[in-house]
Amino acid sequence: MTTLTKTYEPLTETTAIELAIKLHFFENSTSINCKEIGDGNLNLVFHLTDENNKGVIIKQALPYAKVVGESWPLTLKRAQIESNSLKEAAKHVPSLVPTVYYTDEHLAITVMEDLSHLTISRKGLMNGEDYPLLSEHIGQFLAKTLFYTSDFGLNQQKKKLLQQQFANPELCKITEDLVFTDPFYDSETNNFERELLPVVSEIWNDSSLKLEVAKLKYSFLTNGEALLHGDLHTGSIFASNNETKVIDPEFAFFGPIGFDVGQFFANLIVNALSREPQKQGVLFDHINKTWDVFTTEFTKQWTLDSVEYFTKTEGYLSYVFQSILEDTIGYAGCELIRRTIGLAHVADLDNIPSIETRLKAKTKALQLGKYFILNRANIHSVEDFIQVSLQHVQQ
Amino acid sequence: MTTLTKTYEPLTETTAIELAIKLHFFENSTSINCKEIGDGNLNLVFHLTDENNKGVIIKQALPYAKVVGESWPLTLKRAQIESNSLKEAAKHVPSLVPTVYYTDEHLAITVMEDLSHLTISRKGLMNGEDYPLLSEHIGQFLAKTLFYTSDFGLNQQKKKLLQQQFANPELCKITEDLVFTDPFYDSETNNFERELLPVVSEIWNDSSLKLEVAKLKYSFLTNGEALLHGDLHTGSIFASNNETKVIDPEFAFFGPIGFDVGQFFANLIVNALSREPQKQGVLFDHINKTWDVFTTEFTKQWTLDSVEYFTKTEGYLSYVFQSILEDTIGYAGCELIRRTIGLAHVADLDNIPSIETRLKAKTKALQLGKYFILNRANIHSVEDFIQVSLQHVQQ
Repeated sequence: MTTLTKTYEPLTETTAIELAIKLHFFENSTSINCKEIGDGNLNLVFHLTDENNKGVIIKQALPYAKVVGESWPLTLKRAQIESNSLKEAAKHVPSLVPTVYYTDEHLAITVMEDLSHLTISRKGLMNGEDYPLLSEHIGQFLAKTLFYTSDFGLNQQKKKLLQQQFANPELCKITEDLVFTDPFYDSETNNFERELLPVVSEIWNDSSLKLEVAKLKYSFLTNGEALLHGDLHTGSIFASNNETKVIDPEFAFFGPIGFDVGQFFANLIVNALSREPQKQGVLFDHINKTWDVFTTEFTKQWTLDSVEYFTKTEGYLSYVFQSILEDTIGYAGCELIRRTIGLAHVADLDNIPSIETRLKAKTKALQLGKYFILNRANIHSVEDFIQVSLQHVQQ
Repeated sequence: MTTLTKTYEPLTETTAIELAIKLHFFENSTSINCKEIGDGNLNLVFHLTDENNKGVIIKQALPYAKVVGESWPLTLKRAQIESNSLKEAAKHVPSLVPTVYYTDEHLAITVMEDLSHLTISRKGLMNGEDYPLLSEHIGQFLAKTLFYTSDFGLNQQKKKLLQQQFANPELCKITEDLVFTDPFYDSETNNFERELLPVVSEIWNDSSLKLEVAKLKYSFLTNGEALLHGDLHTGSIFASNNETKVIDPEFAFFGPIGFDVGQFFANLIVNALSREPQKQGVLFDHINKTWDVFTTEFTKQWTLDSVEYFTKTEGYLSYVFQSILEDTIGYAGCELIRRTIGLAHVADLDNIPSIETRLKAKTKALQLGKYFILNRANIHSVEDFIQVSLQHVQQ
């Protein structure tokens, strides 16, 4: 048996099994099945099961991003950020995140609950699933994880220490570049069909759009409102008809609340763009319900669990919601654009088989993204947000 | 000779001399004069000189705040924050801060340049000094220290690490409570002449004012734009007709840029309120010039030393200045109110001998503070800010 050392090296299926036995997840190695199932760009993910179908996940961060080869080095510290973030979320929404069983900081390993009975929600939504509880659960997830790590719900001195612990410069840089910068000029990281060039050029030459993106990026850089998931798209959510589990929070850091909400909404919209009109409604219902649950729960917590003197002040909560909604819309706009022409695409759009339909859907994503960014301050309710979205999606 | 140990204990004049000799600032103890000159609330400050008038300052943080007795414990880490902040500022404006010669983290000691040839500018201004270079220097100080620690002038990943290093929860809490919370309700920390109660009650009952203070406090809690001095009033500035040195940055943390600017402006205004009308003009000239130098230098740096892609975007710089001005005005308003009715007063107002004149000046400070907070978004230039100030001060 190979000795597991504290010097970092990537696990193999063999050493992953050894680790699981060492940690007493399984009795012996004879009946353990192990498969590397990582389809992300940054990690190894081993799925281990025994003959009774008892399973466990061993995730290990890689010291580079696979998407661009080994030439893009990445801190291993993100494994610790991820497991700390899961543990923090488990304090507030234990049923909505995988349980973390074990972490090893040096080896960048997290051992956690096997969720293989669930499907990644992006994949499920692309297969026509509706996930009736998705919005109820994500609304709860957002309300609880964001409120209880904000200056409204967490002792303000403790919040500063938690913020210090979640400084995450390298992963933030990926977002800063790939979401807020590169898609808005002719960067070599961009990636889109040449037929889109006319509408892409419009984006690159629109200085009023760039000014608004600059403001959104600045807020992402400076505005430490709460501990975000940081990458809350439908590919970071496992789902079934009964369960929802949010995974992969390695981008976690203290940022603007609307960023998490906006990424989730935008990814529901790209899925809508890939569906036939009569099957799109459920996605906008999810947006509506998510916002409703989020604000209802947040309001309850604001009333019962506030640590901030001014939460009793008339008008403050509605000001906070209006700010979050404005940010949400702006960040949703950035996400729509970057997922269409930036480095990291979404399968919802890329897998549309007909080139014509695909280009039409992508053009709509870009136009809607632009509209969101430019008009976010004039959209005052989630109903208006949905109406504007429908106008673009179903035009 | 007493052995200096690494266990914290407050220095005495004798052990301060021993430390200076150990560090080779002086040859021997026979001719060294040592005097504790701290007039702050949080530290011991020893001024040591030899027979040639060569001097040095030894500052040591106390583990409690003197202002409320030993019952208010305070982290000694602030000594490290202070010396790190002075060293950071020295990279950008070496002539505007005292040189740090030595620091001892465990003993919370900073040994630094003797500035006893200068006067604390609050004291000088109260004695009728005008300090012709004050605004030129503070404008430079603000532009350089704030730009080069912001996401515009500092690599955004390095900025996050610096921000982590300057997490300063305990000192921030003092500001959160004493500047943004306690003065706005009937807190027992408040302190004001009973004749002011009618106008103070108006403040406490004004829910639109409280809503705006809530927003300013939230920005102070969340908006990590740049490494602030954090306590930039005229008592933190040594001056003469030729020199200016900014001291005491133990409140340093990453916060909204306008907080530093606003505190400085408000403290010039309280001094104006203590002067005869014909001697007030110089203070408003200082405000005008500070803003002019600050924006001119900031613009130069923005053009030459930007690390942010979007600084080339049309309209972005003027948006940034407008935001900073709006914050500046709001924070100046909070400072005017808390220095009048909060725990920590300013001698400018408290030393006005006639009770009638004093109450009149304090009432003006409160009214102007309120006006700033409520109307900060509608004041679009420093000229308008000065005009509004003059209308209140000279009414």
